[in-house]
Amino acid sequence: MKKILIFGAGRSATSLIGYLVKNAEQYGWFIQVADMSLALAREKTHNSPLAEAIQFVADDHSHRKKLVQNADFVISMLPVNLHSLVAADCVHFGKCLFNASYVSADLKGMEQAIIDKKLLFLCELGLDPGIDHMSAMKIIHELQTQGAEILSFRSYTGGLVAPEDDNNPWHYKFSWNPRNVVLAGQSTAKYLYQNRLKFVPYQRLFAEAETVNIPNWGEYEIYPNRDSLSYLQLYSLENIPTLLRATIRHKGYSEAWNVLLQLGLTDDSYKIEQSETLTYRDYFLSFLPAAGFDSEETIMNYLAQRFHFDLQSPVAEKLRSLQLWNNEPVILANASPAQILQQRLEKLWVLQPQEKDLVLMQHEFIYRLNGKTYLHLSTLAQTGQDATNTAMSHLVGLPLAIAAKQFLTGNIDLVGLHIPILAKVYEPILAELEQLGVIFSEQITELSN
Amino acid sequence: MKKILIFGAGRSATSLIGYLVKNAEQYGWFIQVADMSLALAREKTHNSPLAEAIQFVADDHSHRKKLVQNADFVISMLPVNLHSLVAADCVHFGKCLFNASYVSADLKGMEQAIIDKKLLFLCELGLDPGIDHMSAMKIIHELQTQGAEILSFRSYTGGLVAPEDDNNPWHYKFSWNPRNVVLAGQSTAKYLYQNRLKFVPYQRLFAEAETVNIPNWGEYEIYPNRDSLSYLQLYSLENIPTLLRATIRHKGYSEAWNVLLQLGLTDDSYKIEQSETLTYRDYFLSFLPAAGFDSEETIMNYLAQRFHFDLQSPVAEKLRSLQLWNNEPVILANASPAQILQQRLEKLWVLQPQEKDLVLMQHEFIYRLNGKTYLHLSTLAQTGQDATNTAMSHLVGLPLAIAAKQFLTGNIDLVGLHIPILAKVYEPILAELEQLGVIFSEQITELSN
Repeated sequence: MKKILIFGAGRSATSLIGYLVKNAEQYGWFIQVADMSLALAREKTHNSPLAEAIQFVADDHSHRKKLVQNADFVISMLPVNLHSLVAADCVHFGKCLFNASYVSADLKGMEQAIIDKKLLFLCELGLDPGIDHMSAMKIIHELQTQGAEILSFRSYTGGLVAPEDDNNPWHYKFSWNPRNVVLAGQSTAKYLYQNRLKFVPYQRLFAEAETVNIPNWGEYEIYPNRDSLSYLQLYSLENIPTLLRATIRHKGYSEAWNVLLQLGLTDDSYKIEQSETLTYRDYFLSFLPAAGFDSEETIMNYLAQRFHFDLQSPVAEKLRSLQLWNNEPVILANASPAQILQQRLEKLWVLQPQEKDLVLMQHEFIYRLNGKTYLHLSTLAQTGQDATNTAMSHLVGLPLAIAAKQFLTGNIDLVGLHIPILAKVYEPILAELEQLGVIFSEQITELSN
Repeated sequence: MKKILIFGAGRSATSLIGYLVKNAEQYGWFIQVADMSLALAREKTHNSPLAEAIQFVADDHSHRKKLVQNADFVISMLPVNLHSLVAADCVHFGKCLFNASYVSADLKGMEQAIIDKKLLFLCELGLDPGIDHMSAMKIIHELQTQGAEILSFRSYTGGLVAPEDDNNPWHYKFSWNPRNVVLAGQSTAKYLYQNRLKFVPYQRLFAEAETVNIPNWGEYEIYPNRDSLSYLQLYSLENIPTLLRATIRHKGYSEAWNVLLQLGLTDDSYKIEQSETLTYRDYFLSFLPAAGFDSEETIMNYLAQRFHFDLQSPVAEKLRSLQLWNNEPVILANASPAQILQQRLEKLWVLQPQEKDLVLMQHEFIYRLNGKTYLHLSTLAQTGQDATNTAMSHLVGLPLAIAAKQFLTGNIDLVGLHIPILAKVYEPILAELEQLGVIFSEQITELSN
């Protein structure tokens, strides 16, 4: 019996735990789920006799180490700052580790030790990063095999709300960590456009969103994601002229978000002393220059003029809907501007229990083959069941679960620190995802030269 | 004979070293000047038999420690990151230390050790911080003695170019560390306005500059400086409704600088790989969104539309003057965007050998006394002699030199980590500064209620 230890039973772990518990008997697994909340871990293990819920505090080093030492295989769904602790334990006790997060500098620093101990650490096994790598690499490898010259590759993903439950002016509800949404984009984004490096600092990121068309879904907007340049090498696309990874939002989201950002409401670099004594109005007026803002009208007039939008526009409607100038108390003590904004948004942008989320992912290739130029759109669109069984949770957890199964049944024969860009890793995962309904639709058009 | 050890012989140390060398015989001092450049240290000590120039590399720990150990008193004019090393040595060997920089977190951490060893560390003894503290505290103490209620205190300082040598469209030339000018304002500024906290993130700092009037000098603009809130307590102004510290620039500077900032040219958070292979044009186009910018005209048209200025405006003239789209090579290897911008500006905004700088400082108090409301403007304006003997160097170095003399002759009887806000510290310094021609002019007007 193999003991699989999963750290974290939060939002994104539902499908992962469900899949492993369901397959436990067939493959001879025992599943341990360790979370800060015992209730949450219990809820996710469904009282299976082949699973155990464990209460776990990341700071309790000896407990954490003991759990790792006794496990055969470890999966971490912890926030990125706690990953490193678990990863170091795994190296120490010689356990393989899979996760769904970006490879951190800490993990990169452990690479030699991982190799020396002949372990496999497989990271970025979620949706984005995860399915995006696997599905993109599949097409890239196919095109390279055909001898195509890839001129442009742009890939964008969004965690959104399903159209039937899209009923706020921002057309957005949280289906994953709200903190990441509020802080998105705070380090300079980098990409390649027609052989030219492009740098987009935070203050321009949401001001210059671009429109894209997603077949059957219509027009959305995208903003660049982190450092696309590092994928030139990872994706074996060293000579490509254009490479961009980006995030999808509903049209108009970025222009309104940019107003919050420009004001300074997404700032997480300092705490506001005694923020618990403030109202939202106090908070908001701290970000307007000295003047008499005594009503919604004076505030909106100022914002409209300062940020060049019309008072009847969707931007104005979005900003009004947040009511950041009402007299409700902030309550949160010693909080950063971003934390206070997040608290307000978590009230307003909540997915109600029966509401559905939507995940959209699209790869957009332009390539030349046999003298002709083609546009290839590869599109994934998935809607969740409800606020617990979200498309997001499904698409983050499933590839990780399938990868774990492939590995534990001997089908992934690798050593070192990896992400799923090798055919032998992504092929079986994509094949099983397809069986489970995770299917990309493909549209290839010849472009006039 | 007392041995005074000065670290750093750069731009701001000229007047400091000159003053101490001149007074060395009378007071029985021997002056050691340690700098990376032996030539520079020699130039500043003027071959005095009572002074010694020493070549010094900050990394040579044993040499640095030996110098500190053998000194009676230490003055550090080093960049802020090297201060801490010298400060730790001073604590270790029991030497008192004066400097002209902001009290850093590192120094704050040494406070108890400084007290335990009965040492005096006196910081912020330059111009800003320095003369600003002293001259402001003198007025604050006077007003408090009179029983006045201070309603508003705003204080602003600028290192500028003298009007007779003001011949570039930015009306700015470097009279101090260019790197600090390029990176100015990158942490959120905080101040108090009519009892309300105000936060100004970098992306708004130069977009919302305010106009002030400086008697005899005309209109200038100011942008908020760092964290003014910490001065509520330091200046004993706990109940004041409005408190702002700010930086002075020529009118129009901020609007044009904001364009560079918004584009991302002042970003120092990453290095551009192989920047030495780029031209300025390559560099600049990396900060424009994907499109065909093939001439100055297309670039300026884009910028004018994007940042809402007129092509015939002073903003446009300022931007054109930088010629950031010409084909000169960048040369600087692996440099940040800010470093590349700085290199270009250092060529264009240089104070020629015979040109003069200008320092402006103004304190602006509004207070109530005996039922009436007054505006008190206290203004300092000083022009330098030439590019070496700048007003900036004079005003940074002199208070430090005078403070050193006062301390070494037994007139400053204090222990611990201090800045010059106590009457017994600032009074003799301000008195001697006045004798040396550093004179504030005062203008008090009654305001209609």
